[in-house]
Amino acid sequence: MSHQEPSGITFESISPAEFFYRNRQMAGFGNPTQAVYSTVRELVENSLDSCEDARVYPLVDIDIQNLESEMITVKVSDNGAGVPSDQVPLAFGRVLYGSKYSQQQKRGTFGLGVTMAVLYGQITTDSPVTIHTRTNDSKGVLFRLFVDVENNLPLVQDNEEFQRDNVGTTVTIKLKGDMKRAQERIIEYLRLSTVSTPHAKITLKIDDESHLEIGGWSNTLPPPIRPSKPHPRSIDMEVLRRLVKRHGKKSLDDFLCDSFQKIGLKTSARFLRFMNFNPSKVMSEFTRDELSRLAHALRKYDGFEQPDSKCLSPIGKSDFLNAITSVFNVKMAEYASRGVSEWQGNPFVIEAVIATGDDFPQSDIPYLYRFANRVPLLYDSSDGVLTRVLKKIEWSRYSTSQSGPVAIFIHLCSTKIPFKAAGKQSLATIPEIEHYTFQVIKELGRKLGKVNDRSRRSARELKKMREFSKSLRQIARFSTSLANLDEIPPTDDLVKRLFEVDSNE
Amino acid sequence: MSHQEPSGITFESISPAEFFYRNRQMAGFGNPTQAVYSTVRELVENSLDSCEDARVYPLVDIDIQNLESEMITVKVSDNGAGVPSDQVPLAFGRVLYGSKYSQQQKRGTFGLGVTMAVLYGQITTDSPVTIHTRTNDSKGVLFRLFVDVENNLPLVQDNEEFQRDNVGTTVTIKLKGDMKRAQERIIEYLRLSTVSTPHAKITLKIDDESHLEIGGWSNTLPPPIRPSKPHPRSIDMEVLRRLVKRHGKKSLDDFLCDSFQKIGLKTSARFLRFMNFNPSKVMSEFTRDELSRLAHALRKYDGFEQPDSKCLSPIGKSDFLNAITSVFNVKMAEYASRGVSEWQGNPFVIEAVIATGDDFPQSDIPYLYRFANRVPLLYDSSDGVLTRVLKKIEWSRYSTSQSGPVAIFIHLCSTKIPFKAAGKQSLATIPEIEHYTFQVIKELGRKLGKVNDRSRRSARELKKMREFSKSLRQIARFSTSLANLDEIPPTDDLVKRLFEVDSNE
Repeated sequence: MSHQEPSGITFESISPAEFFYRNRQMAGFGNPTQAVYSTVRELVENSLDSCEDARVYPLVDIDIQNLESEMITVKVSDNGAGVPSDQVPLAFGRVLYGSKYSQQQKRGTFGLGVTMAVLYGQITTDSPVTIHTRTNDSKGVLFRLFVDVENNLPLVQDNEEFQRDNVGTTVTIKLKGDMKRAQERIIEYLRLSTVSTPHAKITLKIDDESHLEIGGWSNTLPPPIRPSKPHPRSIDMEVLRRLVKRHGKKSLDDFLCDSFQKIGLKTSARFLRFMNFNPSKVMSEFTRDELSRLAHALRKYDGFEQPDSKCLSPIGKSDFLNAITSVFNVKMAEYASRGVSEWQGNPFVIEAVIATGDDFPQSDIPYLYRFANRVPLLYDSSDGVLTRVLKKIEWSRYSTSQSGPVAIFIHLCSTKIPFKAAGKQSLATIPEIEHYTFQVIKELGRKLGKVNDRSRRSARELKKMREFSKSLRQIARFSTSLANLDEIPPTDDLVKRLFEVDSNE
Repeated sequence: MSHQEPSGITFESISPAEFFYRNRQMAGFGNPTQAVYSTVRELVENSLDSCEDARVYPLVDIDIQNLESEMITVKVSDNGAGVPSDQVPLAFGRVLYGSKYSQQQKRGTFGLGVTMAVLYGQITTDSPVTIHTRTNDSKGVLFRLFVDVENNLPLVQDNEEFQRDNVGTTVTIKLKGDMKRAQERIIEYLRLSTVSTPHAKITLKIDDESHLEIGGWSNTLPPPIRPSKPHPRSIDMEVLRRLVKRHGKKSLDDFLCDSFQKIGLKTSARFLRFMNFNPSKVMSEFTRDELSRLAHALRKYDGFEQPDSKCLSPIGKSDFLNAITSVFNVKMAEYASRGVSEWQGNPFVIEAVIATGDDFPQSDIPYLYRFANRVPLLYDSSDGVLTRVLKKIEWSRYSTSQSGPVAIFIHLCSTKIPFKAAGKQSLATIPEIEHYTFQVIKELGRKLGKVNDRSRRSARELKKMREFSKSLRQIARFSTSLANLDEIPPTDDLVKRLFEVDSNE
């Protein structure tokens, strides 16, 4: 769509595929190094989400081949739910299309990443993506397709039935990529993925040589998560208008109970009395002004409970600690978390681990590992809210200097992650998230401080005990010789008993 | 569009308006503070671009009113070209629609910002945007409209002829905004806007009180800029395919000369001979493989000249220096720039100024002011490429410690700015941009170093001169008394003459 004005100024509409094609650095495809990394990341995230849908232990195999003149192929295979044959073209060939727009924690949420990888492959190598997938009710299908960028639609080249041994999906993308520079980050990303998804097993082969076989730290599947209705405090005019369109015939009180979480008959009655609304008024009869007043009231009323967390999937204390100690050499590790809170009506949970050990880089402040909805974030840390919080804390208080290298692992899970860009690396500053992250990290700081105090105290005790037992031995020797005895009586047990009393005080 | 699979997984397509509505933090509308700032910024950028189109000295008036309960109105008025009546609805009510998708330097480039401000206003206050605009061939029209988010289309509420005194546009948006926290940044943004657009005058009123009246540092309009054809090195398969679609009947050599900048008959012939292509082959007869080979060759061939810079508008040495010394108290200021270079075929120019003065914050490294296509960037500096370069330089070499506070102003202009996110704050790492920024900043560092050396040397000279003249006076006094004379001869002139000789060496 293009329109030339008499002034000579041309107005034009572009498709979202065109927008992200022109601004691909926003989606993490700015250069050949970033592009390989993002391709692997997007495919792995999709695989893990798909395994979650299928409720299986994820087995994700990545196979990268270096071809001539900076071309590579990335092939990622999983045992997930597979993609229904009629959905393959749009799921891989259209941006802003996907299965992940519901109110629940998902790794991918934009319906953007995989199509961007396909698009980047196509513009740099002129090759289509290959998708080989099998769902429960098929034997397998094979697709080859391009993206029609101008129209944001798939261009299917081949589509045939093709047997796949097991349910799951294999995606192969050929692209221009700088594997040499991306390799270290990719391996780091995959290792950290098994920290945040400890029940997954991941392998990486480069040019047919195994570079990584990792994971399976946990033998329990996380409990299934379910999409939830919107929380009343998350309402803006836009959401409310859509709900009313869908439920126009309902009375206001039924509408409230049916459309929102945390509103039952009692809460609804209390809210309506407080706000002076007529409960039996039919929704379709509300004027725009009345709806606006309702939206405002829903956001402001403080009698609603916190949003529910069934739509979230934190890693959990034992899995998180266990995964970290499996991947890193750790001297000590402590966990803390804040139960469900909300930002703009979106529930979120923050959990974090502080760990010490020589695997981490030494620095004045702890080294930060960031995760959002179980996805490790490796780039663009400096401007994110998590880094800001970390820097706000006076770490010297917790005697970090005597711990050796310290690391903090933070996991934010939410139905909506406030990413600063579609490349999903850095988090925007949301006051509620900032506040709770601060609390959780401070709690971890205190825990570390205690451990440090304890070890400092026990060092002091040990020294005291040694002095004491030396003196006691001398006294014993002296008394023995005074008493003209031959055998000096043992004193060590006495000392130990004394200090046991002391330390139980 | 929504589709429920037997598996219970729902596939869905969302409009780009919906995408940015859900992820508004990506476009700079994450919270009420950011939202006011971004609203002002987007409207001012549009106004300045529009004045450039009209070839007039920009007069931009911003009027902000604080209403009850955190609501505000932002009204921005300009003397630009005005928006043609038939374009108003889409220009303000549709994202990814605009007049700025051509190959030339523009402040706005996404066709996103103003519609995002409209959208944010509508979801937080349920109020439509008001647009009052007049072009050369109208008396003025007034529109009130909302955005239909689900369909990415304008919803016009009112549309009437309404006299406007002069050509230009006035936009009024009501939104939820935290003006208290945004005010300082907004003023900073506007001050810096007159540094990068020194021929503009900007005023800011808050609650009817004047807070700023600034600008007009330059009395020359920048030369007009013109969109350019793509440079051959900027070609990927996508661009090439589109060009071929448009010029299918042309022979290859005509196609090359007509479609690209920097390809004339000679260059074309040389290129085709070198690459072994048949010049008279008709474009529509190329196979996909042949086109791919052509795209590859165009990107790789090193016989093309650098892209032309007629589509760019750097600030220029005297305007840049003059504007900085008008806005800040400056002790010294030096300018440097690199002529046109390219990244992925997009021409760019980097120009920068180093300045010292007590208006700037004191720090180990210079304080950085960033500009892209004449737009000041105030947020998210830490992860951007310009900050990275600044930090890479060993500033101690240039004796920055003795200069007092130092600032660097960098302006990147290009047909394409590699923003990391649609909120336009931080730049992705592009090796070519990194390289030239490094060179320009180093040159400025050396210039500062020289100034510092000179002032250090002159301080040393001054001390030497003082010592010398003291001794000379003593000798004179001593000789005078030896000679039994009364009047001691003056020595100051002699000393001065001596040192003048010295400093001319």
